[in-house]
Amino acid sequence: MFFLAFEGLDGSGKSSLMARLEEHLSTQQISFIKTREPGGTLIGDQLREIILSKGKEVPSARTELLLYEASRAQHVDLIIKPALDQKKWVLCDRFTASSIAFQAGGRQILDEQVMWLNHFATDGLKPDLNILLDLTVEESHKRRQGRIQAGGDAEDRMESEADEFHERVRSSFLKQAVLCPTEWLVLDAAHSPEQLFKTLITELQSRKWLE
Amino acid sequence: MFFLAFEGLDGSGKSSLMARLEEHLSTQQISFIKTREPGGTLIGDQLREIILSKGKEVPSARTELLLYEASRAQHVDLIIKPALDQKKWVLCDRFTASSIAFQAGGRQILDEQVMWLNHFATDGLKPDLNILLDLTVEESHKRRQGRIQAGGDAEDRMESEADEFHERVRSSFLKQAVLCPTEWLVLDAAHSPEQLFKTLITELQSRKWLE
Repeated sequence: MFFLAFEGLDGSGKSSLMARLEEHLSTQQISFIKTREPGGTLIGDQLREIILSKGKEVPSARTELLLYEASRAQHVDLIIKPALDQKKWVLCDRFTASSIAFQAGGRQILDEQVMWLNHFATDGLKPDLNILLDLTVEESHKRRQGRIQAGGDAEDRMESEADEFHERVRSSFLKQAVLCPTEWLVLDAAHSPEQLFKTLITELQSRKWLE
Repeated sequence: MFFLAFEGLDGSGKSSLMARLEEHLSTQQISFIKTREPGGTLIGDQLREIILSKGKEVPSARTELLLYEASRAQHVDLIIKPALDQKKWVLCDRFTASSIAFQAGGRQILDEQVMWLNHFATDGLKPDLNILLDLTVEESHKRRQGRIQAGGDAEDRMESEADEFHERVRSSFLKQAVLCPTEWLVLDAAHSPEQLFKTLITELQSRKWLE
């Protein structure tokens, strides 16, 4: 079993790529769970609401990071580790790399501090592979607007950040991928969903994780 | 202005000592705020509910600590630092020492990890004085039961821990006080409220913080 984290700006196509992989794993009779951060547990979902809602009180940058990490610790202990122990694959929408991208890149907390917290919250557990759906900030913005016009939810607190914020987030994802190439697969999110899925399957086959 | 943290087992008399000091500061026309952890802010109060309620899902030890630290970061940024900047005294019911006592002592997370998190969450801010109301676990238990019988709230999730847990909490408080004597005032909570208050005022006067 393998632990895959799907990363990228909002609108980059994580959900649709995850859905295709789920279907593929099902046809291969590979058991898996699909989950997301922040969230994945009861406490995690309460924290997700505090983090993402545009409530009366805005969390400070350090508070925001600690809330993500609290959600993560609970997620690892109650959901992810038990699934891996049961030999299930784990497909997770965002994980530790998002904290580095958004809270170190975006909010400019020190990389080392976010890395320390990631390590503490996960108790050292790392994804076997981070899959980055790389998208320009312009295109991310366009896709999010399209979603809202199509009747989707309004932008949450993170999505509402300025373009410069999202530029720093994108750069951080790319930097992480360059620094640890064996832990990352970088996909061009401008490609078609079919193309993206094929590239992902080819990667998983070349790693001998799938037949 | 000075930042005082009141620490000790539940039932040790923190609230009543704080109330006497508040009254004294008021008569001296010294401006102050009184606050508590977890809590003190809107987000902090939401986290307090998650931490202390006996809900459907129990936070793991690491989650619990991260929730306390998230509440603390928000508390420092929104309430404590601004009050100190306005030259107000801050009287706080529990602060960083409680995380060391309960999560390192009680839950047996490493001291160094809790200290790292305390430093991150507070951005390095420390109380000028920690006031420990030292009480035996037996007496703490007796006082809490007395409160419930008198119609007070039932025990919360932390109060419901076993005696051995509270013994480790008490030892950790005492150890912290021994290691940094200038940052601590240790009071015997078995003394009368009047006696405790007098000792506290004498200490604050000898430090030239009060006339």
